[in-house]
Amino acid sequence: MKFNNSPIGIFDSGLGGLTVFKEIRKILPFEDLIYFGDTARVPYGNKSKETIIKYSSEILNFLTDKKIKIAIVACNTSSSLALDYLRKISPVPVFGVIEPGAQKAVEVSMNISGRKIIAVIGTSATVKSGAYSKTIKEKARLLCGIKKVETTNVSNIDFNENLKIIEKSCPLFVPLVEEGFLNEEITTNIIKYYLASVVKEEPACLVLGCTHYPILKDFIEKEIGENTEIIDSGVETARSVKNYLEEFGMLKSGTELGIETFFVSDDSERFKELGGKFIGRPIDNVYVVDFS
Amino acid sequence: MKFNNSPIGIFDSGLGGLTVFKEIRKILPFEDLIYFGDTARVPYGNKSKETIIKYSSEILNFLTDKKIKIAIVACNTSSSLALDYLRKISPVPVFGVIEPGAQKAVEVSMNISGRKIIAVIGTSATVKSGAYSKTIKEKARLLCGIKKVETTNVSNIDFNENLKIIEKSCPLFVPLVEEGFLNEEITTNIIKYYLASVVKEEPACLVLGCTHYPILKDFIEKEIGENTEIIDSGVETARSVKNYLEEFGMLKSGTELGIETFFVSDDSERFKELGGKFIGRPIDNVYVVDFS
Repeated sequence: MKFNNSPIGIFDSGLGGLTVFKEIRKILPFEDLIYFGDTARVPYGNKSKETIIKYSSEILNFLTDKKIKIAIVACNTSSSLALDYLRKISPVPVFGVIEPGAQKAVEVSMNISGRKIIAVIGTSATVKSGAYSKTIKEKARLLCGIKKVETTNVSNIDFNENLKIIEKSCPLFVPLVEEGFLNEEITTNIIKYYLASVVKEEPACLVLGCTHYPILKDFIEKEIGENTEIIDSGVETARSVKNYLEEFGMLKSGTELGIETFFVSDDSERFKELGGKFIGRPIDNVYVVDFS
Repeated sequence: MKFNNSPIGIFDSGLGGLTVFKEIRKILPFEDLIYFGDTARVPYGNKSKETIIKYSSEILNFLTDKKIKIAIVACNTSSSLALDYLRKISPVPVFGVIEPGAQKAVEVSMNISGRKIIAVIGTSATVKSGAYSKTIKEKARLLCGIKKVETTNVSNIDFNENLKIIEKSCPLFVPLVEEGFLNEEITTNIIKYYLASVVKEEPACLVLGCTHYPILKDFIEKEIGENTEIIDSGVETARSVKNYLEEFGMLKSGTELGIETFFVSDDSERFKELGGKFIGRPIDNVYVVDFS
């Protein structure tokens, strides 16, 4: 049996990718993991494609210098806008969080009879990029043979289609999570506000298209109704990565628990404090890197 | 009479400083203004002192290359953390937004009999820096002869002092403004949430210690009660700058309306779109600058 003992590189604009990190760790306990959070330049959600490609490339280069065996772009915005470019320049395979989430969404909707509706929520940049719609359409064509796919925003509905994709940006969710929710009433109201138009559509599934959103999952679950399955891109990405490593003989050998190293581009105190909440245990081994 | 026809440089981490720009324009219609918004690296509020000093210095150098006669740091976070450093390296006078706001707060509280309470709201970084408390104390000593000044957070109150300063961070206000408020109920609830402890104290005045906050002024006014005067640092800064230019013979000659030029470090579309709301009219002349 083949093995590869190099670490896995995971990066995000800041803290959000830690929800992906957590899922990777859960199902790949022996892998060494290197996480990079671009805390000096967070958030990416309101920045241009060019800037996001530039920042993401710098981080990828940093990680490949550390001899990673694969890179995971644990950021939906960067996965939407920079993934194609990163794959071109990378010496190692690069995984995004969008394809696994899109794949799962299509699989779930296949099991629904009648009209299939997939909802995706994310940052403005992710939604504006249309990356989820594009990827879901591709997967739908491959998996289900659905030929006619409609993408629309919630105000423009056509009921004569096989598959409909609703994308909705929820820009206040990230600061809400980073703020620790304020209180239950405000959190619930903000979620109600953003999801009202989505809930009305009774989608087969709702993709959490931002790595911060799993932290709000309990609140979202209450709003969205029990007939809608919530898809966590982080969970799906971790599964994809595991399958890939197994298939290509790239798992780490042995059963020793993996080492975890964290790099950030700015002050590590806030990262440690909030990051601990994201992965559910204290974070150590945080180093600051200056890209300038 | 002496004149100086060079432009005034104004900068911020992003859009917020436009509320200061607007006040400057209101009382100095003939001055040429150059505005820089660091939209590629916004926000500064959650970044370290070192990073904020570095970013602010780069912008100051950019502006002084454009032959400005004075620089205005229209960002409370940068004024809190980088002003001393910027003054050391700058060839032109540098104004922050904290001193003018602090000065006005002390003047207002002087007119209150009995216990004088000054409240300040801002980003986490501004509040954490303690810059307002420090500056208010200095001004109070100079102006009122108040010798005993207590700084405290709202949970730790001592009623045996002449002057009390309450600083409260409201980190969700900036994304709320940038999102265009969501709806009235949510906006009101978030403001209620943050201000509850401040309102209870019935302060003489409330300093809006973040350049985004004037956009929320109407909502804040409803919460804070009529006995508390709201102080807009932008308004006070504009007054200080005007006085300074008059005193040192540095006003622009003539009565031709001033030219306005805007620079941003990332994609100008969002800046134009939202910025227009900040200054109440469309923004043109926006150029993108790459610092890397």
